[in-house]
Formats: sequence, C-alpha cells, structure tokens
Amino acid sequence: MANQPTVGAGGTPTPTVFFLSDSTGITAETLGNTLLTQFPAQRLERRTIPFITTVEQARDVVATIDRVAASGPRPLVFSTTVSPDVRAVLAQSAGHFFDLFGAHVSQLEQALGSSANGLPGQAHGVGDAVRYQSRMAAVEYAIEHDDGQSLRALERAELILIAPSRCGKTPTTMYLALQHGILAANFPLVEEDFDTMALPKPLRPFAEKCFGLTSQPIRLSQIRQERRPNSNYASLAQCTYELRNAEDMYRANNIPYVNSATMSVEEISATVLQRMQLHH
Amino acid sequence: MANQPTVGAGGTPTPTVFFLSDSTGITAETLGNTLLTQFPAQRLERRTIPFITTVEQARDVVATIDRVAASGPRPLVFSTTVSPDVRAVLAQSAGHFFDLFGAHVSQLEQALGSSANGLPGQAHGVGDAVRYQSRMAAVEYAIEHDDGQSLRALERAELILIAPSRCGKTPTTMYLALQHGILAANFPLVEEDFDTMALPKPLRPFAEKCFGLTSQPIRLSQIRQERRPNSNYASLAQCTYELRNAEDMYRANNIPYVNSATMSVEEISATVLQRMQLHH
Repeated sequence: MANQPTVGAGGTPTPTVFFLSDSTGITAETLGNTLLTQFPAQRLERRTIPFITTVEQARDVVATIDRVAASGPRPLVFSTTVSPDVRAVLAQSAGHFFDLFGAHVSQLEQALGSSANGLPGQAHGVGDAVRYQSRMAAVEYAIEHDDGQSLRALERAELILIAPSRCGKTPTTMYLALQHGILAANFPLVEEDFDTMALPKPLRPFAEKCFGLTSQPIRLSQIRQERRPNSNYASLAQCTYELRNAEDMYRANNIPYVNSATMSVEEISATVLQRMQLHH
Repeated sequence: MANQPTVGAGGTPTPTVFFLSDSTGITAETLGNTLLTQFPAQRLERRTIPFITTVEQARDVVATIDRVAASGPRPLVFSTTVSPDVRAVLAQSAGHFFDLFGAHVSQLEQALGSSANGLPGQAHGVGDAVRYQSRMAAVEYAIEHDDGQSLRALERAELILIAPSRCGKTPTTMYLALQHGILAANFPLVEEDFDTMALPKPLRPFAEKCFGLTSQPIRLSQIRQERRPNSNYASLAQCTYELRNAEDMYRANNIPYVNSATMSVEEISATVLQRMQLHH
C-alpha cells in the first residue's frame, strides 16, 4: 500500500509534502507549513524525515521521494539541510525542491561579514545550556503552579495568568514555559472572588505580574459543556456572570487582558509576551 | 537608554535582529534563529514585533528599526509578513531585509499551479479547529498522566514514555502533546520495578505503546543532585544501577529507547515520532 497514491474526496490524488532536515525537522515544518497556509484548498499528505546527515541517507530519502513521485502527483520537498553535499543529493529527487536554508544563508553571510559554519542544524538542540535548563525548569514550575495548585513561590513567577475556568490559562502557561522559559503560574478566578472587585488575596502583592484572560460567554459555555454537561458551571448565565466580573476586576486593578475566544495558545502567548515585555 | 547600542564584552556594539510578522512571529523566529546558529560567534540582541498587519503599523516598525540603525550596527530584519503593501514598507528600513516568505511563495505557486491567497499568517492561529482541540486535550491529558499520577485511561494513550526519574519524560511528554497533539502518558521506573525484567504490571497490556529513555549515569547524577543534594537517589552508584536495569528491561521487552543525555526535548520528540511512526 505504501506506493498507492492517497486519493482526495474529489478523486484527485493528493500530493505528498516532504519536510527534510539534518536535525529535528521543526524549522522545515514551520516555514513549509506557513507557506502552505496560503493554499488552504490544497489537500496534502505530510511526511517529515529528520536527522539526514550523510550522503547515503540522502540517497535513501531521494529513493523514497522518487517512489512516491512515480505513482502520483509530483511531491513538494522542503529542506533545511545545511551540508552542500547532502543538499546536492536531495535536490536531485523528482520532487519540487525548496531550499529553505540555502536561499538565505549567502545573504546572511554578506550582512554579517563572516562565513556560515556549515554544521548541521543546531537550532533545536540543547544549544545554550543555560537557556535550555531554564526552559525545562519553567515546565516543572508550570506544572507545580497549574490552576493555583501551589501558592508557594508565586513571588518567583515572572507572569501570573488569571481567568475564570476554561479560558486557556493552562495550555498558554505550558507554551510560555516550554518555548520561552517563562516562569509562569496561573490562578483561577471563581465566583467567590467576585464579592469585591479587589484581586484575590494571594495575588495582591503581585498585581504587576498578572495578565488576565477573558472569552465570549457562548464559546466558554460550549467548552464547559464538554467538561460538565448541563451543569450550572457550563450555563450561559454563569459564564456571562464570571466573564463580566473578571473583566471588571481586570479594569479595576489595571490588569492587562485579552479575549482569548478565537485565539490559539501561540497567539495568546505572543500577545502576553509583547504586552508584558517578557521576551528573554 | 533605548537608543544606546548594547556593547559586547569585546567592546564591539551588538547588532539587533528584528523578527517581524503579521501574526505571532513564530515562523520568523524559527527560520531566522536557525540561520543564525550558523554564526555562533556573533552576539546579537533579539526583538520580535508580531501582529504587523497595516501599512501604518509597518511605518512605525520601520521608524523603530531606523532609530536602532542610527545609533549602532546595521540591524538584521527577518520578515514573514504576507501583504505586499506591508512588505514593501518594511523592506525600506535601514536594516538588512530578509524576506523569508516572498522568497519562496512564487516557486510554490508554480509548483501547485494556483495563487497564494495573500491572507496574513494563519500558521499559528487556531486553523484546523479539530487539530487544535486535540492539541489542547493532549496537554490536559499529559498533565493528568504525568509521572504515573493516574493509571486510569492508560489505554487511551498513544504513547507511554518510561524511564527512571529525571531522564526527561515530563518535558518531552508536554512537548509532544502541545506541538503534535499526541496523547502521551509517562511512567517512572523505580528500584522495585527492577526485581524482575518484566514490565511493571500497569504497563504490560500496553507494551507496544511504550518508549524508553535512558541517560548517562554521570549526567543523571548531576541533574538529581540539583533536586536532592547528597542523597542516595542522586548518587552515581544508584544512577548507574537504575539506568543499567532500565536498559536491560527495555531490551528484554523489545521496547525501543534512546539515550537522552545530550538531547533536547525537540530532538527526543523527533526521534520518538520517527521510531513510533506517530505523526498525526
């Protein structure tokens, strides 16, 4: 079956996209997929082949691409491999070859007035060990401080995300920790917190670290229905009440906030980093 | 101070790298930083400016770049903005302009035989809502099943990472969940598990989902020292014992495994996805 072309709903064979890398494949996937979002109607099969570091491995990959090409539409090949020898082999496959790395490196050599070192991709290796360890420590911190579980060490936090339940605090915290090494805690706002417009007591010393999330009542109600169907917790009235009060609390305490209803964790994170000036 | 150039240890002013995007900036950072790893000696200041969607915003960004350029070395500018109007403005700054998007899109239009839709970056938005929700659900699942906390629903896992304490299970699980939507549990191997070479009982029905991590005894001992200094847990003898037995257990049960001692979570994840054929 491996050589049978996948056929889309309309009966048209689906082209395969290969993401090729001498390292993890993350950069090839990231830029390749970004470019492909410009063609949303195009159905595609995706396949990542990481850790291609030798000419022999490159020849095997070319054979794989050529087999796919022989039995269906011409594949797309996005490559970030660094070695000129490996690239020269990969460029000979029957696919459309996109050299995402080579296209820019000579311009960069000119701009910096020095030569690329030619070593295989180091961007997603351990690299800077201090930075890497800070990311790993941030993941642990995020798990320990998820959902207000531990109020110990809130003073260590660089950021405290606050919001009613199910507005996106947990995955955003995890993303900021894992990708940016931000020591991020999160703290749930519950009905009792809205008796006054003051911040919940554990947060008061740390108001300047707080960032609020809000959502649309209908959207929040849908999400809560999945967790506890037909509960008061998931009712539109309850969601409306909590979100309105949370927004009032943010405004009363000058807490910056964003409506996360239609945003991804990546978009929420980019917004938080920008507004809180938190880039490392 | 904003206009003062940062000065490196050798007294040379440090160039600033701008990552410009109409969306999160993730793609610009990812490819830009990948290219810059080829120049490891180069000290750089990094600055991401996301969500540049209008010509007016682009003009403000150019003014910022030009201020930096006026008081120090010529900045580097990596851009993934899609709109030709916005790009045309950004390209006029005093920095070296790298058009990471435009450089490839016309080749891709030819390959696919259709036109790019020209909409601002959607790669890190919610995009495919089903895929996005599966990533968010996987993050929750990873938190619930971290460190063998919950053996409920191990049958739902697509992957169970197993290893002695501090080999990288938790951050790898989190990465696979957040970036790839993999339902990943992890399970710690402890001394009592090594009385026999059989898998721990809760894992036996799921051997084909298991992937093992091991490490170097000295490296593991260093990491454990940070958590519990001068403990038996952190001793070289104990680490050696646990890692040898874990590796024997993996081999005895045909569990694929990797030595994570010098690998990043991204590299471990790429290896696990490839060996377990887990790409979504």
